[in-house]
Amino acid sequence: MTRQELIEQIRKKRSFLCVGLDTDLSKVPAHLLDSEDPIFEFNKAIIDATKDFTVAYKPNIAFYESYGPKGWDSLKKTIDYIPSDCFTIADAKRGDIGNTSSYYAKTFFEYLNCDSVTVAPYMGEDSVTPFLDFTGKWVILLALTSNKGALDFQMIKDEQGEELFKKVLRRSTEWGSPDNLMFVVGATRAEGIGEVRKLVPDHFFLVPGVGAQGGSLEDVTHYGWNKDCGLLVNSSRGIIYASSGLDYAERAAEEAEKLQKEMAALLQKKAF
Amino acid sequence: MTRQELIEQIRKKRSFLCVGLDTDLSKVPAHLLDSEDPIFEFNKAIIDATKDFTVAYKPNIAFYESYGPKGWDSLKKTIDYIPSDCFTIADAKRGDIGNTSSYYAKTFFEYLNCDSVTVAPYMGEDSVTPFLDFTGKWVILLALTSNKGALDFQMIKDEQGEELFKKVLRRSTEWGSPDNLMFVVGATRAEGIGEVRKLVPDHFFLVPGVGAQGGSLEDVTHYGWNKDCGLLVNSSRGIIYASSGLDYAERAAEEAEKLQKEMAALLQKKAF
Repeated sequence: MTRQELIEQIRKKRSFLCVGLDTDLSKVPAHLLDSEDPIFEFNKAIIDATKDFTVAYKPNIAFYESYGPKGWDSLKKTIDYIPSDCFTIADAKRGDIGNTSSYYAKTFFEYLNCDSVTVAPYMGEDSVTPFLDFTGKWVILLALTSNKGALDFQMIKDEQGEELFKKVLRRSTEWGSPDNLMFVVGATRAEGIGEVRKLVPDHFFLVPGVGAQGGSLEDVTHYGWNKDCGLLVNSSRGIIYASSGLDYAERAAEEAEKLQKEMAALLQKKAF
Repeated sequence: MTRQELIEQIRKKRSFLCVGLDTDLSKVPAHLLDSEDPIFEFNKAIIDATKDFTVAYKPNIAFYESYGPKGWDSLKKTIDYIPSDCFTIADAKRGDIGNTSSYYAKTFFEYLNCDSVTVAPYMGEDSVTPFLDFTGKWVILLALTSNKGALDFQMIKDEQGEELFKKVLRRSTEWGSPDNLMFVVGATRAEGIGEVRKLVPDHFFLVPGVGAQGGSLEDVTHYGWNKDCGLLVNSSRGIIYASSGLDYAERAAEEAEKLQKEMAALLQKKAF
């Protein structure tokens, strides 16, 4: 999906929501466990219930991988099932030396045919650029994450007083453009989002941490907004585990719609 | 495998070699492609041919993952086939927020039953410690990598003049001990290895970059040695792709033995 197509979806659906498919068999409703592929059955119902309220889906690969080849099967079926008007994000946080990163890129862009993959920056340029070589595909690079550990290294200031996450932003904009590079910027650091926005005015941000992790949608929009919206705000557990009963899909739809309505109001306020 | 058992294997085999199983169907001998599982057939022959010369095997997960569920099957069979006196490293470079990292840990420590997994430090403490919670298992944390991109961020100096890779070393030794934490330190920066050794005298290092990437075994040993040897030196392509013909396993054995003999000489010199 191109940047322009993504922006059009946001306009059309009045939403910049991303639904995180962190599907965990210990949390899916018990009645699904007898089906042949409970992970896919769960995801299918969640996708059917939420697709009108969201512009993106983000399966976190850790959950699928932990079930071995069967988990990868469920993941593949899930990605194939996501409607083509939704942007797909493989949340994989990969990154290795050049030759090896190109294999990870093949996995997510060719085998799974996702629009994008999250990538970790620690190994630098040649660990990131192999992902950017795939036409029509996106890298979503970790910049300022939402977790407590983000403070350990991402905030380290260099001799010129520039934090590591800013250096990651600055350097990586030399490798990719707003058409193939987004950044992970956690909602738990709303003012951080403002600083990131100043440095990279045109890039989209994938923002985790709204809801369960404590970030506010209004703050994220205030600090992260750009002329194209520029935001994909993720919610995982708050939507997919809204209920562990027979009504899990209906409750997921309610939660997704609630966020979508808040987003629609914010988009209107921004005259978008 | 415990630290003590690993040290005993090094003593017994007169080797601190790790064979990297970066198995790529475009590079395996053509006659294997007709078999049911060419990746496993290739790995099996390589393991049979090299097991007397090596103390560790390191499949890089990117290569397996790119073949989807079949690749994960080949990987699982490979890990199961590795003799129990060899240390197994899942070279996966994973890392995510706490809850998610624990799923990655389950994949590599429970599903695959590897001894260790490589982890990327960018997301900090809560992305690393879930891996350290598994008794008898190891984290091998990226510190100073062997690739060109290592210079982009790992060498950034903070206001006190300390490089990022040193901060990663210093902080992470608060999370794990020499009994469950190793570091990736690239052979292409031999003097860097010396600096790392000063900071973490007791931890083992996994050293990629000898051979194809240009690092020297003698330099690595000179700068990285500690009283327990403290080194696992990896070679991938130089061994497994020594020949693309029918003699690939014999040639792999020759290359592994050549490195083992060099290592035996170095161990003798160190009176180990």
